[in-house]
Amino acid sequence: VKLSVRSELIYEFSPETEIIASIQAAVSSEQIVQSERMQITPAVSIRQDGPDAHGVRHVRATLGGPGTLVYEAIVDTGHRAQLPPSVRQHAWSELPADVLEYLSPSRYCPSDRFVAFATREFGDASGGARVLAVLEWIYTHVDYRPGVSNAETDAERTFVDRAGVCRDFSHLGITLCRALNIPARAVSAYAWKLDPPDFHAVFEVFLDGGWWMVDPTRLAPIAGLVRIGVGRDAADVAFLTTSLPCTPVSVTVSVDRAADAAAA
Amino acid sequence: VKLSVRSELIYEFSPETEIIASIQAAVSSEQIVQSERMQITPAVSIRQDGPDAHGVRHVRATLGGPGTLVYEAIVDTGHRAQLPPSVRQHAWSELPADVLEYLSPSRYCPSDRFVAFATREFGDASGGARVLAVLEWIYTHVDYRPGVSNAETDAERTFVDRAGVCRDFSHLGITLCRALNIPARAVSAYAWKLDPPDFHAVFEVFLDGGWWMVDPTRLAPIAGLVRIGVGRDAADVAFLTTSLPCTPVSVTVSVDRAADAAAA
Amino acid sequence: VKLSVRSELIYEFSPETEIIASIQAAVSSEQIVQSERMQITPAVSIRQDGPDAHGVRHVRATLGGPGTLVYEAIVDTGHRAQLPPSVRQHAWSELPADVLEYLSPSRYCPSDRFVAFATREFGDASGGARVLAVLEWIYTHVDYRPGVSNAETDAERTFVDRAGVCRDFSHLGITLCRALNIPARAVSAYAWKLDPPDFHAVFEVFLDGGWWMVDPTRLAPIAGLVRIGVGRDAADVAFLTTSLPCTPVSVTVSVDRAADAAAA
Amino acid sequence: VKLSVRSELIYEFSPETEIIASIQAAVSSEQIVQSERMQITPAVSIRQDGPDAHGVRHVRATLGGPGTLVYEAIVDTGHRAQLPPSVRQHAWSELPADVLEYLSPSRYCPSDRFVAFATREFGDASGGARVLAVLEWIYTHVDYRPGVSNAETDAERTFVDRAGVCRDFSHLGITLCRALNIPARAVSAYAWKLDPPDFHAVFEVFLDGGWWMVDPTRLAPIAGLVRIGVGRDAADVAFLTTSLPCTPVSVTVSVDRAADAAAA
Repeated sequence: VKLSVRSELIYEFSPETEIIASIQAAVSSEQIVQSERMQITPAVSIRQDGPDAHGVRHVRATLGGPGTLVYEAIVDTGHRAQLPPSVRQHAWSELPADVLEYLSPSRYCPSDRFVAFATREFGDASGGARVLAVLEWIYTHVDYRPGVSNAETDAERTFVDRAGVCRDFSHLGITLCRALNIPARAVSAYAWKLDPPDFHAVFEVFLDGGWWMVDPTRLAPIAGLVRIGVGRDAADVAFLTTSLPCTPVSVTVSVDRAADAAAA
Repeated sequence: VKLSVRSELIYEFSPETEIIASIQAAVSSEQIVQSERMQITPAVSIRQDGPDAHGVRHVRATLGGPGTLVYEAIVDTGHRAQLPPSVRQHAWSELPADVLEYLSPSRYCPSDRFVAFATREFGDASGGARVLAVLEWIYTHVDYRPGVSNAETDAERTFVDRAGVCRDFSHLGITLCRALNIPARAVSAYAWKLDPPDFHAVFEVFLDGGWWMVDPTRLAPIAGLVRIGVGRDAADVAFLTTSLPCTPVSVTVSVDRAADAAAA
Repeated sequence: VKLSVRSELIYEFSPETEIIASIQAAVSSEQIVQSERMQITPAVSIRQDGPDAHGVRHVRATLGGPGTLVYEAIVDTGHRAQLPPSVRQHAWSELPADVLEYLSPSRYCPSDRFVAFATREFGDASGGARVLAVLEWIYTHVDYRPGVSNAETDAERTFVDRAGVCRDFSHLGITLCRALNIPARAVSAYAWKLDPPDFHAVFEVFLDGGWWMVDPTRLAPIAGLVRIGVGRDAADVAFLTTSLPCTPVSVTVSVDRAADAAAA
Repeated sequence: VKLSVRSELIYEFSPETEIIASIQAAVSSEQIVQSERMQITPAVSIRQDGPDAHGVRHVRATLGGPGTLVYEAIVDTGHRAQLPPSVRQHAWSELPADVLEYLSPSRYCPSDRFVAFATREFGDASGGARVLAVLEWIYTHVDYRPGVSNAETDAERTFVDRAGVCRDFSHLGITLCRALNIPARAVSAYAWKLDPPDFHAVFEVFLDGGWWMVDPTRLAPIAGLVRIGVGRDAADVAFLTTSLPCTPVSVTVSVDRAADAAAA
C-alpha cells in the first residue's frame, strides 16, 4: 500500500533538553520511502542516526522552549503477508545469531515469569498457529481501554489488569511469545485506518526464517502499517525520548492513501 | 595480566534441551586470547556464534541426560585502566549510535524508576567522579550476602533489600548510571583472585569516548577480569541458558596467572 | 469429627528472641477443645493471649538457643457444612460491622488489582455459586507445587506463576472473593488426612449471614479441619512469628481420629 | 484545641452504589465531639457503625446519581503531646494483645521487606528517638509532590520514587516502624492549618504504653489533628469506599478554630 504519513510533535522543552526522535519510516527492500521531509523548529543542529541493520533511523537534537518536529513521507509498505498458521517454529540452534536477543526478557516484557502460564495455555499449538492462539487469547481476555496503564506498566501488570492500550497489548504478546521460545520484538508504526489516528505499537515474531508482523489489538490492517522503530520493547521504540522532563502541547499523526503518481 | 582460565559445567539435561553457553573469553585488541579449547561431552554438533561487534562469542548445542562443558584458555587482559574521576560524561548528542541502547531500562535494571533518587543523591558530581560516587554508595549501603536474591531479583528489589551478590550489585550500578544518563552495560567475566572462584558479574560505563569497566563488589582486581559476555543485564549474559529446566551437578571455575611462556 | 492433634516445633533461636506461637485450636461453640496441653522447653514464662472474638489464642515467650514447642489437643470440629451454591451474597449495607475489614486488600491479597479480572471471569455467578466458581478456577489453573513460592509471594505473583502451595492457593482465593465484594479471611488449621501432614492454610467467606470454610487445594476434607488462627492473610496467622531470624530444626504435625471415649 | 470541622463530598454515583463513608471525628476521652451533623442528599437510609474499640465510626448507604455528603462538627482535640525521644519501645511480650496486629505487614506497608534497611539505618536509636529518626529520614529523603503516586502506590514504591503525598509519607513511616518491631497504624484526620485544606493522613506508634500521633509531612500541627479513622493502612481508612466506580465532583474540607462558646 502506498501511504502518505505525517506527524507533528509540539512540545515545551526545558532548557538544553536533548532529544531522540524516532518518527521516520524505516527503510528496507520491503518498505520503500519514496520521499520524505523532516523539519525541526526552531532550526537546530540535527544528528541523523542510521539506518541501522533494521533500517531504523532516528534524529538527535538539543532543544529548549517551544519546539516542533514535523515528519512527512510517502511510503510504499510493499506486500506484507498475514502470518499463516502453518509456518514453523525454529529450534534455538537454527536461529540467526542476531535474532537470539529477542528471546530474552526485557523491561516491559518479563517473559521469564510467564513460562508456566504460556506453556499451559499455548503448549499444544506450534509455529504460526501458536502465535495466532496467543493473539486470540489477548484479544479475548484484555480490554482496549485508555487510562489504565502508564509509562511504567509492564506485561505482568497488564496480564492482571486485563486492560490497556496498543503498547500494553504488544508487550503482553511479546512476553508470551518469548516465554514460548519464539523470538519477538516491538515495532512502532504509522497505521493506516487507525481511529483515532496516533502512533501505533505492534510486534513481530520470527518463524520459518523470517519476521512476521502482528497486531494483537486488531485496530488496523497489517498491510497498512509503516514500520518506524524496532526494539526489545517500548523502552527502545519511543517516538520521543528526552533527557529532561518536558510538556507535550500536541501530537498529531495522519496516514492517508497516497495519490497515485501515475494519475498525474 | 596473562591468565589461565578454566570452567567446567556439569549438568543433567532434560531430553532435547537446547543450550546457549556463554563461557568463552571475548576477543578484541585489548583482550588477546592466546589459546583456547572448548569441549562438550557427549560429543554433539556445536554451533559457534560470533565474535560479534563486542568480540563476544557463544556456542549452541542440543543436549540430553548428563552433559559436561569444559572451556580452557590463556588470555592476556592487556592494560586495563581504572576509571579516573576526571573523565567527562557525554551529552546524548555526542554518543555513538550503538551506545544509545545502554541508556534504556532493561529487565533487571528499571532505570526509569530511579531518576529522582539518582539525581538527588549523585546530581552534584559528574563524569567519572559521579560513577565512583555510585560505586561508593553501593559498597556502603548494600551487603554482599548470598541467598537473598534469585533469578528474578531486579535492581529495585536489591535497592530495598540492601543485600545481594555480584549480579545484583552490578544491576543496581547499571540502573543508577542509566538514571543519570550515563550508558551502562553488564559484563560477565572470569575474575582472577575472586574467592571463592566463580563466574563474576561487573559492568561498564561509557565516558569520555570509551567504555570503562568497574566492579561495585570490589571483590577482584579490575586488571584481572577476563571479559566473556556483554549485554543490557544478566538476561543477556548468563553463562548458560537452556530451553528446558535442567539440574546443575557442578560448576567449577578457576583463574590463575599463566606461566610465562618466555620462561620455557 | 473428633480429632487428636499434635504439633512439635523444634527451633534454634537467636538469643533473646521473642516469639508468638499460633498453634492452639480455636475455641467456639462449633469447635470444642475437649483437652489440650502446651509445653515449651526450656521452661520459660509464657503469656497466653485470647481467646479473642474469633476464639483465637496464641502464646508469647522469649527464647534463646534450642527450643521446643509441643501442643496436643482433643478437638471436636462439630458439624461443618459444605458451602452450598445457593447461599446468597450480601450487600455491603447488610454486613455486620466487624466483617467489613475482610473486604479490604491486605499484604498478600491485593484484591484492588483484581476487580477487572474477577468481574469478567466470575461476574455471572452469584453467592455460593460464585465462590465455588472461584475455587474451581483456581483448582483448574494453578498447580500445587512446593518450591515455587516463598514468604514474600502474594496472590498477584501466584496468579502469574500458576503454581504454589496451600497458602498461595488461599491467598488467591481470598483476593478474588474480595475483588467480587465477598468478605474473605485466612484460616490456619490442622487438617485430618492431609498428606504429608503439615499445618494447612484455607479460607472462609461470609455469605448468607455466616462464615463458610473452603479449601481451594482440595487436599483435605473440610469436616476434618481444626481452626487455629483467623486473619486477613498469612501475615496474621503464621504458626510462628519471631522477632529475630531463627533456624527451624523440625516441624512435625499429626492429626488422627480420636479414640472414642465411650469405648473406654 | 477546639476546632470546627466541615467536609462536603459531591459525587456522581453509578446506580445502586454502596458506600462506606469515614468522615466522622472519632470519639474518645481525649477527643471530645461537642456537636456534629451528618447529612446525605438525596435522603437515603443510613446505617451508622461504631464507635468501635478505637472510637471510630462510619456510615453506610446506597446511592445513585448525584449525591452529597456533608459532615460538620465541633471537636475538642484535648491535649495531645509531642512524641518525646525518651519514651521506650516495648518487647513484644509486653504489648497488649490488640496491639500485635499493627506489627504485621499490610497492603501498602510491606514491612517484611524493610527489616534489613531499617535495622541498618535506625538500629542504633531506640524508642521515641528511633521513631523521630525515621521521621527525620523521611522528611529529608522524600519530596512532598502530588501526582507521583496513585491508589496503588505502596511504601516500597515511595521508597524508590522518593516523592509522594501525605498518604505515601505515612505508609513509609508505618512500614519502617513495623520493620523495627514498633507497632504502627494509619490515622486519617482533619488537620487545622493544613494548606490547601484536605483530608490528612498521619500515623501512630505504640511506645511506653500508649499511642503517639506523628506526621512525617510536618504540614500541620499535631495538636490540631482531629482523628477520623484508624487502621492498618489506607485500605482501612479511606474517607469514601464505593462498591462501584464513581466520579468525584468536588471534595471540600475546612478546619477552623471554633468560636469560644463562653463568648456567647
